[in-house]
Amino acid sequence: MPIPLPRFTLDLPDWALSALQQLPESIPRLEDRMAAVLRFARLNTEQGTGGPFAAGVFERDSGKLIIIGVNRVIPLNCSSAHAEITALTLAQQILGTYDLGGPDMPTHQLVVNWSPCAMCFGAVLWSGIRSLVIAGADVEMMAITGFDEGPMPANWRQELADRGIELIEGLMREEALAGFRDFAATNPVIYNGRQGG
Amino acid sequence: MPIPLPRFTLDLPDWALSALQQLPESIPRLEDRMAAVLRFARLNTEQGTGGPFAAGVFERDSGKLIIIGVNRVIPLNCSSAHAEITALTLAQQILGTYDLGGPDMPTHQLVVNWSPCAMCFGAVLWSGIRSLVIAGADVEMMAITGFDEGPMPANWRQELADRGIELIEGLMREEALAGFRDFAATNPVIYNGRQGG
Repeated sequence: MPIPLPRFTLDLPDWALSALQQLPESIPRLEDRMAAVLRFARLNTEQGTGGPFAAGVFERDSGKLIIIGVNRVIPLNCSSAHAEITALTLAQQILGTYDLGGPDMPTHQLVVNWSPCAMCFGAVLWSGIRSLVIAGADVEMMAITGFDEGPMPANWRQELADRGIELIEGLMREEALAGFRDFAATNPVIYNGRQGG
Repeated sequence: MPIPLPRFTLDLPDWALSALQQLPESIPRLEDRMAAVLRFARLNTEQGTGGPFAAGVFERDSGKLIIIGVNRVIPLNCSSAHAEITALTLAQQILGTYDLGGPDMPTHQLVVNWSPCAMCFGAVLWSGIRSLVIAGADVEMMAITGFDEGPMPANWRQELADRGIELIEGLMREEALAGFRDFAATNPVIYNGRQGG
């Protein structure tokens, strides 16, 4: 089987690198962390670099910013490049570990502008993240945008708790929904898997 | 926030590139596709390049081989680099699309040496794959190896059917379990998220 060297590079768009460099090293207030994530989600669609989702990895207690990632599915041709997987993967590269909850690590937190989809929920469990902050959950985002979150375990909140992962939800919910409404008003491509017949 | 350029490269180990080049362009029989996947899973642990999982993307009807990926979590410091996500992502790069089930595409099949974890189950749904072939499912692999598959939706088989994804299970089940037993006998690192306290 003669094949070209198969390789995939996950990175952030240029505007995100600039925007990251303008942020402070630490963001102590939780609302300010979410506000930064909401801004990245909005910029991602405005700049045409992916879907309306962003996710930030922080040290929970100090607020130290590790990275904010965005959805990269369409521009990178990768259906797994949701914002959460992008952020977790890049944070693991920056910190040089596959386990953000490893021994002697500070507590890491993931801040996202909506609840994770079925895939990203699993990715959160395996990442070592110990705190998940979301602007909201479930049907409102799907009703506005048409994005499908997929089949979540019915007791996903309890699954997080059972695995020692703190959940904080409803932070800046109205601002997040306003972002989704503005996105939906542009009549965008909504990819939910299998566009063919 | 001064940061180094965040970037992640997902690729295959050198032995896998060589092994891929020795395979035929097409593998018509399903058992032969699974046999190739089982061999990659075994080689991945023997060569010390990741966990005991492999996944192949094929054109279902012709058997054309697109790529076989392996678990790369520990060597690449990426908790999401399970075999399924590696294979699907590299297949999407090779084919230049985020949707393996897009219009005018042949039907693509994912062949894996066990049932997907919670994360990879979601990844399958978003990938455009229309046929999933697994050697087995549920508790036997976990009991042998200690790997946690995470909280799957209770009706995951029905969720696949509802989304038009064919499921074929139990292919070369005993051979797959033998591979997991041999892996477990080496007292390996089993990563299930959050190694710290």
